[in-house]
Amino acid sequence: MTIDEQIEFIKKGAVDVIREEDLRKKLERSAKTGKPLRVKWGADPTAPDIHVGHTVVIRKLKAFQDLGHTAIFLIGDFTGMIGDPSGKNATRPPLSREEILTNAETYKTQIFKLLDPEKTEIRFNSEWFEAQGAAGFIKLASHTTVRQILERDDFEKRMTENRPIALHELLYPLVQGYDSVALRSDIELGGTDQKFNLLMGRNLQREYQQEPQVIITTPLLEGLDGVNKMSKSLNNYIGIDEPANEMFGKVMSISDELMWKYYELLTDLPPTEIEAMKSGDENPRNLKVNLAKLIIKDFHSTEDAEKAEEDFVARFVKKEIPDEIEETLVSAGNYNLAELLVQTNLAPSKKEARRLIEQGGVKLDGEKVSNTAAEIELNGEILLQVGKRRFLKIKVS
Amino acid sequence: MTIDEQIEFIKKGAVDVIREEDLRKKLERSAKTGKPLRVKWGADPTAPDIHVGHTVVIRKLKAFQDLGHTAIFLIGDFTGMIGDPSGKNATRPPLSREEILTNAETYKTQIFKLLDPEKTEIRFNSEWFEAQGAAGFIKLASHTTVRQILERDDFEKRMTENRPIALHELLYPLVQGYDSVALRSDIELGGTDQKFNLLMGRNLQREYQQEPQVIITTPLLEGLDGVNKMSKSLNNYIGIDEPANEMFGKVMSISDELMWKYYELLTDLPPTEIEAMKSGDENPRNLKVNLAKLIIKDFHSTEDAEKAEEDFVARFVKKEIPDEIEETLVSAGNYNLAELLVQTNLAPSKKEARRLIEQGGVKLDGEKVSNTAAEIELNGEILLQVGKRRFLKIKVS
Repeated sequence: MTIDEQIEFIKKGAVDVIREEDLRKKLERSAKTGKPLRVKWGADPTAPDIHVGHTVVIRKLKAFQDLGHTAIFLIGDFTGMIGDPSGKNATRPPLSREEILTNAETYKTQIFKLLDPEKTEIRFNSEWFEAQGAAGFIKLASHTTVRQILERDDFEKRMTENRPIALHELLYPLVQGYDSVALRSDIELGGTDQKFNLLMGRNLQREYQQEPQVIITTPLLEGLDGVNKMSKSLNNYIGIDEPANEMFGKVMSISDELMWKYYELLTDLPPTEIEAMKSGDENPRNLKVNLAKLIIKDFHSTEDAEKAEEDFVARFVKKEIPDEIEETLVSAGNYNLAELLVQTNLAPSKKEARRLIEQGGVKLDGEKVSNTAAEIELNGEILLQVGKRRFLKIKVS
Repeated sequence: MTIDEQIEFIKKGAVDVIREEDLRKKLERSAKTGKPLRVKWGADPTAPDIHVGHTVVIRKLKAFQDLGHTAIFLIGDFTGMIGDPSGKNATRPPLSREEILTNAETYKTQIFKLLDPEKTEIRFNSEWFEAQGAAGFIKLASHTTVRQILERDDFEKRMTENRPIALHELLYPLVQGYDSVALRSDIELGGTDQKFNLLMGRNLQREYQQEPQVIITTPLLEGLDGVNKMSKSLNNYIGIDEPANEMFGKVMSISDELMWKYYELLTDLPPTEIEAMKSGDENPRNLKVNLAKLIIKDFHSTEDAEKAEEDFVARFVKKEIPDEIEETLVSAGNYNLAELLVQTNLAPSKKEARRLIEQGGVKLDGEKVSNTAAEIELNGEILLQVGKRRFLKIKVS
């Protein structure tokens, strides 16, 4: 890949790249010197149960790894063991070292489904924070001003609204920022909600006479409902440990619009290829099958993906259709769907057939078809459904 | 002393006592249980060269010690070793452990001129801050809010004026406050400029489920000029290591008004006694001699104080008067000064004599006398001076 192609690939689906010219400079220097870039992604050491929403940023880390750079997975155990000492933040209870190590192992098992374990550096930030003690921490704090920290959106809002901010909350962004100094990171990745903390890394690196890291933020992925952020609590997620069949069914259930977002954020397909698909005339059902299989391949195998498709169709058929279905024979070949409906007496006229298709009343193998000009290649058995109750199995004679 | 008398003695010269009812409660409980109160005074471990301005607060500590309580001298070595890491504060360079120990020894030598070494607990705050590390420090920070800290006058001013505050500056008041928690202090003493930090101790003790300490602030002492704060750099100070003669001369040079302030802040005389002196008719010269001797006794000895007085007179006499002076004899007894001036031909009339006295033109043994009704007890030799050049030695016949 040329540097331009690399940048295109890295920027795919990203929200912020600060700054692209720095990214180019770093990539060019790395290409020249052969020295890989150090690409950091950090996570809290809470019990991980990763869904594909989390993999958006991990895929970005993988992209760098695939380009030959060093992926660093930073586990924030130092603050994890402190938690929120004011006790006001229930999502941040303090964790024991044992819990953290257990969680780290679970993390590894999950992220190594995408990342190459051999090429991933795993670090814990207690390494440097425990060594430097309280005095080191105060020194660190001297490298930023109160105003800089209070500029973070949520702090500013709380100050304005006179809601309390505990003093230790001001210190946590410093921790994350200093991790970049300690790791000498070239690039840091994170969700858009992490932007302020990633920028803190840039500032602190400058303070410590390092070249500031490039920060790249990835969007928060919408869940299956296409509206809310993907999350366990909303039950709109695809877990990466889920069986292939579950994944398949969930991908098939999403809207066409969301499908393109998932193509962008959950696959390695280059932007140009996705654009080509968008402007092509492939049936969305088939595009979803393709997407589902791409996703399954990442966390299971190609065989599992094929099997999931077969099972989906089989299960669907079993679930929705009556035990006994009328059958009819037609000769093999390509058919216009509307004409096929008329020919098999499922619609009285071609006009009525098109109306039924338009209104979403026609399903082919359990998937709605809404294109009135749809063509069907008939060389085996298909199941047509009109409305809720009319089923017809069509076989090749 | 009754509790009321104790409170009166403790409050002498203090600016704030927060709160007096808590002080009473603590004193009463201590009297009942026989358990002494823990009274904290803290200092930076910079090279100490203590002048009497510093002793105002040390005397307050001594007052508690004299009442049977535990004096704690806290050396802030933890922050001393950090200094101001932003390097913007030249008065706060980081100190090595060796420097701190040396400074501590110098401190001890000096404060033990007032305090009883046997009854003074000397502590270093690195004891608890090094033990708890960076994590402990973050936990500590969770016990206060950003708003509480920014309420400190100088922070508020700098925020309003958009002048930067480095983040570590917010942490230093916490250090001082937590020292009170670690020491379980009942009382903390400090200058008025320390009020915010002392109050922080109260807040943090509450947070750590301790009874909040009572805070007592003492005023900043004016220097010999009576205008500016006593300081080395203004050369308006009395150093506690100075020779007795130096101290004597410096006290004799202050204004009558400042003399009363020094009586209040630099001696153990009870308020009632000072009030009695104020409303009495003792010559200010004699009151200053008395004050000088009281101060000298604290840092030298009673003999040194007597000797200093003699030397002062001798030196003064030697310096100001001509080699040959006319002498005259009068009989022993009490004399009205104005009448004596007429009788010895130093003034042409009693009216003129009073005018000379009023204008400050008359000196007795080198000290100006400005009371026109002054009485002199004559039983040895005195030296009278009128104007710059007329001298007369008067002896008892």
